Parts: sequence; structure tokens; C-alpha cells
Amino acid sequence: MTKRIGRQTVAFSKPVVIRAAASTVGKKEGEGPLGQYFDEIAEDSMMGEDSWEKAESCFVAENMALVLKKAGLTHEDIQYVLCGDLLNQCMGTTFGIKDLPIPFLGLFGACSTMGEAMSVGAMLIDGGFAEYVLGGASSHFCAAEKQFRFPLPLGIQRPQSATRTVTGDGAVVLAKEGEGPQITMVTTGKIIDMGITDAQNMGAAMAPAAVDLLLAHFQETVRTPQDYDVIVTGDLGYVGHQLVVELMAKEGYDMSENYTDCGILIFDRETQDTHSGGSGCACSAVTFCGYFYPKLCSGEINRMLFIPTGALLSADSAVLGLTIPAVAHGVVIESGKGSCT
Amino acid sequence: MTKRIGRQTVAFSKPVVIRAAASTVGKKEGEGPLGQYFDEIAEDSMMGEDSWEKAESCFVAENMALVLKKAGLTHEDIQYVLCGDLLNQCMGTTFGIKDLPIPFLGLFGACSTMGEAMSVGAMLIDGGFAEYVLGGASSHFCAAEKQFRFPLPLGIQRPQSATRTVTGDGAVVLAKEGEGPQITMVTTGKIIDMGITDAQNMGAAMAPAAVDLLLAHFQETVRTPQDYDVIVTGDLGYVGHQLVVELMAKEGYDMSENYTDCGILIFDRETQDTHSGGSGCACSAVTFCGYFYPKLCSGEINRMLFIPTGALLSADSAVLGLTIPAVAHGVVIESGKGSCT
Repeated sequence: MTKRIGRQTVAFSKPVVIRAAASTVGKKEGEGPLGQYFDEIAEDSMMGEDSWEKAESCFVAENMALVLKKAGLTHEDIQYVLCGDLLNQCMGTTFGIKDLPIPFLGLFGACSTMGEAMSVGAMLIDGGFAEYVLGGASSHFCAAEKQFRFPLPLGIQRPQSATRTVTGDGAVVLAKEGEGPQITMVTTGKIIDMGITDAQNMGAAMAPAAVDLLLAHFQETVRTPQDYDVIVTGDLGYVGHQLVVELMAKEGYDMSENYTDCGILIFDRETQDTHSGGSGCACSAVTFCGYFYPKLCSGEINRMLFIPTGALLSADSAVLGLTIPAVAHGVVIESGKGSCT
Repeated sequence: MTKRIGRQTVAFSKPVVIRAAASTVGKKEGEGPLGQYFDEIAEDSMMGEDSWEKAESCFVAENMALVLKKAGLTHEDIQYVLCGDLLNQCMGTTFGIKDLPIPFLGLFGACSTMGEAMSVGAMLIDGGFAEYVLGGASSHFCAAEKQFRFPLPLGIQRPQSATRTVTGDGAVVLAKEGEGPQITMVTTGKIIDMGITDAQNMGAAMAPAAVDLLLAHFQETVRTPQDYDVIVTGDLGYVGHQLVVELMAKEGYDMSENYTDCGILIFDRETQDTHSGGSGCACSAVTFCGYFYPKLCSGEINRMLFIPTGALLSADSAVLGLTIPAVAHGVVIESGKGSCT
């Protein structure tokens, strides 16, 4: 009953159920093409707080409460909460969940955090350590711009390769038993650094990590892109998505038909002035929870390869002129039977 | 074969072996009371780099290579590397391990990171997902002061309640089989926030999290402090240690005899001008790897409760006047048989 099927991939002997998913987003995300799919859309992305960081924590707190409610559970039912964000010392997460009395395992995977939470959570459940795990990831456009690029009031122009950090929180309840879409495999990424140093072109920095993950996944599972109804990366945007298609073609894999990216889906490029697309920890988290999860519940999607992607830079590393290492985590999710919440 | 013995504690059906441990520290740590126990002491805490952050990454890279060498393994043998640090976006870790081609699960637990790495690593091994896991944590005094308090060149005086961030990296190789000390249980902490806001008194901020963890551990395992040869918290220092002894006494537990703290052990209070003691992710990591691990190997210690403690603040949360939430993770380690590296 070995569960390891390759260097980076494990398959679960008994699939782990995604019992519920919830998404709470900011106003601009609510006005985008996926607006109708999100559970909650904040009228004010400040959430009534006096700082962007505290606002992000509100998104976390409200969405965590929502996903528990949707799962019909309370905090007492959950053995571990696994989550993270991109703010310094993950303060969006810490202050968002600090009043939840659940054993806490903090994660840092930058924008790949949702993939890391689902991967580790599924392993903890399949390993026999939990019945239920709460996993999530958050980000906030204003807090992220201030921290990684320029304070918004400066009005700095952004190049066309730049992405816009998604404001919101996405969260799932993973379960050992019950109905819902199932996590059947996870492929865990290595850090890949191809020497990109432009923090306004994160798609280019992260695309090689996504490609490395895809190649490992296909080689280890002896699958091809055509074995999936849809393959979705986290926040590569238009620039990174195109790079992945081109790089995978060179390796002999056709990604031109069923591959998309949460950063492309979440904003309307023409009308929302979002350049290369969406990004941030919440980009993949809310797009999965809001848009893809119901399609996995209904069977409209039968098998999905979900690959949140993360750029492991900091403002300090950017100032030092260092490269942008990246990582990607792959999660295979298959349509569940019966009701979904 | 249920492994859960309480809300926060799991026991391993088959103990997870700590196959090797390694510690690389800065000059001041090498001059302290534990100097003789560390594997490597840097002559220059800048490690030949031009920034403190890059220096921290050097400690990580060199110590990770060292622990692999001590375990007689290469990166190809390791299924997951689990580590983290306190710098913004964990850049000490990222740039320290980015050239290690091992699936990476980044952690954020502030100074509790070593406990989190050992806990999650042990669960991944016991769950059947890995033969070997590499875990570690790092910090650097100069980088931490700059980020969390004041740049060193300002020469700001520090109060007696302040601790000094330890410079270095501690790392372990966890293994499914073989000889060495054994992890038999882990107790995972919840976030505890008692409203402390003084970033120069981290011991007081973290002590309640340590107490919450200790109470959960003793109640769930039906053990007392006297069931351990030694109980060691991570970096509470003199202030936090005293608080734990007092708070636990009120709960009916005598912690006065066999309880110490890595922050107390690592520096000489009288001669090293370190006030309340050592702190930082590396404090518990290097003290465990350098000082306690060999005693567990030799049998001088038979059963240890190791509780790295973390203060989940950021410079931004401090500026906003927010409280300092804290977390602690408990790991039970029993003396192994045979040789240790």
C-alpha cells in the first residue's frame, strides 16, 4: 500500500474529500467575470478597518467562519487549520484566525499556499491524523502593493506584464469521509529559480516552476494533459500562461486546449485595467473555491489538475537585486458524488 | 490503530527517528555556554556576504548540507524539506535552500518553526508519505533587529525584558527507520493572545502559549512534568520561563525542577549582555540540535518534551498597536538506541 508513485507525487489510497469551499472577495473581484460565483463580495475592501492589513484579516476571519458553516461544522470538529498569506510574517492569517481555537500549522508558500494547504491537509487526513482540516489562503491588493511595489497613493504606472493582487480569502474543509470532490493525488514542487529579477513580471518568474511541476506530474503519473478536463495554474496571468504553453510544447506536451490560469479568469482584461491578470495567494484560492469547486460537485468537471504557483520574493530580496525563486504545488481533484456545500 | 489521543496530541504507532542533527551558529553563540556543542561556529556572522539577510541564507545552506552529510544521505534521499524563518516572506529559508532539488513545504511558525517542522515531518513519515524529511529553522540577530526593532547602527538601548535573536541554523533529518532518538508524540498548539503589545517583552507574550500547550499535553497524555527528564521551551528567556513556572504552579503542576528554556541556556546572562536570553527561530533549533540531541543519543536524557515557542508579530502589526499572538508546538523525544550522528 505504498502511496508514493514518484519523486514528487503521492496518491491517496482513500481519496480525501473537499467537504466545503467558500470564497469572500473584494469589490473589484466581485465586478469581474467570476463575480456571480463568489459567496460573499465586500462592498468596502477596507472591511470597516483602518488599515489594509487588518482588512485582510477580516476577509480571513469571515471566510473561515463561512466555510465552517457551509460544512455544517464548528471549530471543535477541526483538528488542524493550515493557512498562510503574503504579508510580512503572515499577519493577515495570524490576526484572521487567532480567535479560532484550532491547532494551527502556519504555511508559507507565497501564492502557492492554497496548493500547499490542500496537499499537507490531505496528507494529514490520509495519514490518520485528522478527520477534518481547514485550509485557506488570503491576499489584499492594497496591502500587497504597499509591501512589494509602491504605495498606491503614489500612482505609479504598472507595466503590461504586471498582475493585480486579488483581494479576498478562499478556504476549504477537507474531510476523511463524506460527499464532495476528492483529492486523489498531490505533486509537491521544488524551488525553481531561472534568474528572473523583475518583480513586475511574476508570470515569467513563476512559469518555470509550473513547467517543472507539470513535467514531474506527467512523468510520474504516466499521464498527459489530455487526461484532465482542465489544468489550472494559480496566478501566472497572460504572460506566464503563454510561457507555460510554449515551454510545455517544447517538451512534447500540448497544453493549448484545456489549460487556463486563475489570474486570467478572475479579471476582465479589457474593462478592468488589470494588465496580465490576477495574482496573490487569494487568486487561486477564491477561483478554486468559488468557480471550480461547484463544477467538480456537479460533474461538469470530472478531473482537474490545480497548480497554485508562488513567487518567493520579498521587498528586501528585490532591493538586494536577488532573483525570484518560485514554487508550484499540484493537486489532482476528481468529481465527487452527491451534494456539495 | 487510532493515533489521536486528544484534541491537540497524536502518538505515533511507530516512532519517527531523528537520524541526524546539525547546528551552525554565529560568533557570539559560539562564545556562549553551549559553544563547545555546536557543529560549526562562523568566524564572521556576515558569512562573507554584503547583507544580513544573505548571511542568514548562508547559514541555512551550509547547515542543510552538513546535516545531510552527517546522516550519510544526499538530497535525492529526502522526500520533503520543511523549514522556515522570521524574515519577511521567509527569505532566509528560500535563498538558503533554493538550490536543493527537494520538494519544498514552507512553514511559518515564527520561533516555533523547529517544532512545527519536526511535528509535520514526523506526521508525513508516520503517514507513509516519506522515508526521510529534512527540517530546520534559522534566524540572524542583525537581520531580525533591523526588521522588528531598530537598525543596529542606531545603538538603541534594549530593556532587560528583551531577548537577543540567535544567529544560526539548526536542522534535523527525520527518518522512518534506523537508529537515533525517537519522536513518539506531538502536541500542536493553538494561537493564544493574552493582549501583550510590547515587542521588547516576547517572553511575556509567548509564555501563555507555552502554558496552554503544556496543559493540553499533560491533560491529554495523562502525564505530569515529572514524567520527563527535561522539559524545554524555545525562547521564553528568563522572563517567560519564570511566568511559565508561576502559571503552571497555579494549575497544580510543579515545573520548578526539570524545566528550562533554550533562550536561557544559549547565552551567559552575566558576561554576554543578552538581558532576558536568546530568541529567534534558531534559538530552539540550534540548542536542540547541538546540545540536547547528543544527550538523547547517549541516553543521558531518556525522555524530553521540546516546545519551541513563537511570537506571531510583524513590524507592521507592532506599528498598528496590535497584540502579539503566540503559538507553541510540543514534541516528545525519547532516547534512541545505537549510534547517533
